[in-house]
Amino acid sequence: MLRTHTCGQLRLSDVSQGATLCGWVQKVRDKGGMIWIDLRDRYGITQLIFEEGKTAPEVIATVRSLGREYVISASGTVQERLSKNDKIETGDIEINVTRLEILNPAKLPPFLIEDETDGGDELRMKFRYLDLRRNSVRQNLVLRHKVAQQTRQYLDSKDFIEVETPVLIKSTPEGARDFVVPSRMNPGEFYALPQSPQTFKQLLMVSGFDRYYQIVKCFRDEDLRADRQPEFTQIDCEMSFVKQEDVLNMFEGLIRHLFKTVKGIDLAEVPRMTWADAMKYYGSDKPDTRFGMQFSELNDLVKDKGFQVFDDAELVVGINASGCAEYTRKQLDELTEWVKRPQIGAKGLVYIRLNADGTIKSSVDKFYSEADLRAIADRFNAQAGDLILILSGQKAKARKQLNELRLEMGSRLGLRKPDDFKVLWVLDFPLLEYSEEEDRWFAMHHPFTAPKPEDLPLLETDPGSVRANAYDMVLNGTELGGGSVRIFQKELQGKMFEILGFTPEEARKQFGFLLEAFEYGAPPHAGLAFGLDRLCSLFGGADSIRDFIAFPKNNSGRDVMIDSPSTLHEEQLKELSIQVR
Amino acid sequence: MLRTHTCGQLRLSDVSQGATLCGWVQKVRDKGGMIWIDLRDRYGITQLIFEEGKTAPEVIATVRSLGREYVISASGTVQERLSKNDKIETGDIEINVTRLEILNPAKLPPFLIEDETDGGDELRMKFRYLDLRRNSVRQNLVLRHKVAQQTRQYLDSKDFIEVETPVLIKSTPEGARDFVVPSRMNPGEFYALPQSPQTFKQLLMVSGFDRYYQIVKCFRDEDLRADRQPEFTQIDCEMSFVKQEDVLNMFEGLIRHLFKTVKGIDLAEVPRMTWADAMKYYGSDKPDTRFGMQFSELNDLVKDKGFQVFDDAELVVGINASGCAEYTRKQLDELTEWVKRPQIGAKGLVYIRLNADGTIKSSVDKFYSEADLRAIADRFNAQAGDLILILSGQKAKARKQLNELRLEMGSRLGLRKPDDFKVLWVLDFPLLEYSEEEDRWFAMHHPFTAPKPEDLPLLETDPGSVRANAYDMVLNGTELGGGSVRIFQKELQGKMFEILGFTPEEARKQFGFLLEAFEYGAPPHAGLAFGLDRLCSLFGGADSIRDFIAFPKNNSGRDVMIDSPSTLHEEQLKELSIQVR
Repeated sequence: MLRTHTCGQLRLSDVSQGATLCGWVQKVRDKGGMIWIDLRDRYGITQLIFEEGKTAPEVIATVRSLGREYVISASGTVQERLSKNDKIETGDIEINVTRLEILNPAKLPPFLIEDETDGGDELRMKFRYLDLRRNSVRQNLVLRHKVAQQTRQYLDSKDFIEVETPVLIKSTPEGARDFVVPSRMNPGEFYALPQSPQTFKQLLMVSGFDRYYQIVKCFRDEDLRADRQPEFTQIDCEMSFVKQEDVLNMFEGLIRHLFKTVKGIDLAEVPRMTWADAMKYYGSDKPDTRFGMQFSELNDLVKDKGFQVFDDAELVVGINASGCAEYTRKQLDELTEWVKRPQIGAKGLVYIRLNADGTIKSSVDKFYSEADLRAIADRFNAQAGDLILILSGQKAKARKQLNELRLEMGSRLGLRKPDDFKVLWVLDFPLLEYSEEEDRWFAMHHPFTAPKPEDLPLLETDPGSVRANAYDMVLNGTELGGGSVRIFQKELQGKMFEILGFTPEEARKQFGFLLEAFEYGAPPHAGLAFGLDRLCSLFGGADSIRDFIAFPKNNSGRDVMIDSPSTLHEEQLKELSIQVR
Repeated sequence: MLRTHTCGQLRLSDVSQGATLCGWVQKVRDKGGMIWIDLRDRYGITQLIFEEGKTAPEVIATVRSLGREYVISASGTVQERLSKNDKIETGDIEINVTRLEILNPAKLPPFLIEDETDGGDELRMKFRYLDLRRNSVRQNLVLRHKVAQQTRQYLDSKDFIEVETPVLIKSTPEGARDFVVPSRMNPGEFYALPQSPQTFKQLLMVSGFDRYYQIVKCFRDEDLRADRQPEFTQIDCEMSFVKQEDVLNMFEGLIRHLFKTVKGIDLAEVPRMTWADAMKYYGSDKPDTRFGMQFSELNDLVKDKGFQVFDDAELVVGINASGCAEYTRKQLDELTEWVKRPQIGAKGLVYIRLNADGTIKSSVDKFYSEADLRAIADRFNAQAGDLILILSGQKAKARKQLNELRLEMGSRLGLRKPDDFKVLWVLDFPLLEYSEEEDRWFAMHHPFTAPKPEDLPLLETDPGSVRANAYDMVLNGTELGGGSVRIFQKELQGKMFEILGFTPEEARKQFGFLLEAFEYGAPPHAGLAFGLDRLCSLFGGADSIRDFIAFPKNNSGRDVMIDSPSTLHEEQLKELSIQVR
């Protein structure tokens, strides 16, 4: 080793020992007679000290030639510091340096290698290898390492086997767009990169692997939103001979293990909510349960009082922003504008204010008596000082809009703390959703999800009302992962493909091997997948997944550091039997 | 859970308890009054017993409807077996079944689900999910899981951080062919799949990650030999502030840990051999050291005795096949034909036989006296009963041919046992090799490998003699992995690119980001990578890596199970801005 210790290792107990450290020059303070260097590596920072008259002149000369981020090796004796620094673990000691070597000089970095950097996003991405030197970014990746490590530890202890499934697979038109790979050896043919190892993990169940997991890269060629990446990582799991309840318990155990070992948090029991309730009380299939402010529906209280907007609405629904009665007219106007923005799309906002003095005031006083208003307020258990906010319209839309408003109010009221963790299971998703555009049913999760046995008769008569044995785990309003009990009977799987509009030929062409596998003794099985990138960002208390990925791509799918994608030589294209249009 | 126990769990101590098992019907034995079923799952086999008159008639009827590989659930009472089976762990007990449910019927599998199957390779690959049910194949994947698990455990304990590097990267013309991925969002541009995360792991060192590892899929679009896969898995590692010696110790530690924890073997210290010695004494850079039979060079003993073949040869070199003096003339002729096959390419084979009676006989008695022959025999420390085999010709060719002959003799003599494990470091590889065809130097490992400092002056004058700080780990004559100390100085890296025939523009276009990164404080670093597929197959005592991969591809790069690669729809190609030629 070029060093005897790391920069995070030495303590008072090491005083008067010799040590050689290697690392990067974080800072040089030259006070004339005395020079200090903060030397940094992955493990910490250690202070080096040089003293004119005591330190050899050639060492002093070398020190004075150093710049930020030079890579050096320094040897000397550990000594107690005169003025200690209790912010770093090595803050009690320093190295009195007798030998100093420049291992590699460094140009001045284009931005500060500090927690608070002056580098913009584009610059930090171009020089990602420098950005990764920053404590905050490195800690994100260490957190990710720990999450992966502890995930494996938990699943290993539960008899799961990690099996690698292939990356070069087959394109399927269902779902999102595939990335494809031309095959040189099979001209005109293409592999696809997996959007998930779904069919392979089901085949592993048919193989009797019983408990499978994999931390695996998946790929989706979608138009990238701010927080999507073309390649992302899943914790992918599947189990045989289980019921939904077993899967929920197993993976509630995983998330509890991760909170305990990575965050040091004892997670409370994970509550469960049906999809129908989640939609009814939160207007979302991933409710943020860090705060209450549940929806109350008001149709029975507000109709036929002459207020046309409510009379025409399929649903009138509101929330109680507790303690917000002091919102000024201006604030209420601003909030009304907020819900009317195109991103939200509400037509207007009705409020009922329960003033501190006991009076009640609403924006619809014209249509509703005080008794009417008090009846509404009672539905919310509203108290003096509360502010009720009401939206109306087509049911799904009103719920969606009120969900946005609820989250906004939660944020404004400081009820969505990043270090407050509320996990939730959402259960009983609908099996199918109807696409008006394509005039056909789509699988809400995927075509392999099993309907609830008791809802099977509805498959023919009322497909939209069939519930699935499907479940999502939600953390602080974000979907952490989800899964389902799978169909394992060939007939039912065939039926599903039929409902989804596949001809038998199409089904056979795309999933023939799976349907065939189901004929050779497929066990009952179920599984789920977590998004590792998202899980890490939530654990890290951050909004963006990008800083939890070592080398992310930008919103155009470009890696600006290596300048990829890029053009190919003509010969390379020729060998692959393709050409650019 | 649909079961209370697995099929590998119940013991005598469980007798008279109730149990529900789930699994696959391995075998039914129907003796009229009594019926036995071997029920199989991943964990083992448990015997079920049914008795006419005692077992309910409807259960008996169900039993008689079962076929091989049906998936069933069976409940009953654990009882002691009359005739025990000491070959399986549950062999002392059986389940007296009172409830039997068919969870899924099964068609008759196209081949036997047994250790010794009647299925041919092609059939087993098409129904890989059934092949994976076979104990032997499943155990291979369990072994792989353990190797990966223990690799992570060791590296985690040594402060390595697992970092995921991207899969969608940039194509580089150097090295093997890339698989490429057209970018829809960047028309006419392509990503490439990584042949290794080499540059990314070096960038992580520049970032100060200090110790990195990853178990990672890599991709090479090569013409597939019997035992190559287009996608393969590497254990990829890199360390900062280390010397070659530190890397060798760290990864000797890893392999020792794996042997201990996965195979239960205490590995002896790993010997080291220079590349020059490996070539001289074994004619190979990956010598099989399970047996001796080292080369002896004979030029000084055999020249100028009138034997034209040896006189003209650059090298005369032989091995001692100890104890083979009784080879018949016919056997020796056959061996001569063997080395003359085009795959080996020798012109002929000279032998010296040290007969048991003390006499000596050779195929070149015409040219060499008994004293000459005894002098040669002495060089091999040959004893009565030994057979010396000699090849000659151009040095590199003669060595390569004798390497093949040595391995063949080792096999014939039973000296290459799959359960005998001999690990070796081969060191000091040449930095460069010359391609006559392209009339230029190529990097023997890759362009980032550091020359030995003491050989640096030779870079200008005699590039071919420059040795690299590069090392391979060899197990039983197969390369397990290798790596090198890296160049970390921009100037030296530039010089390397120059020697490899890159113009500064080409170097900048392809590796600009790495050269630039080296300007911002790159630490000294070194690393290596192991082939996980190969490691597992050697641990499993098998020749082929294919059975250690869950879903391998065939020699045309096809997955015959899912029938991939396949053609794409025209719209999909259009969206990607490409067309098939």
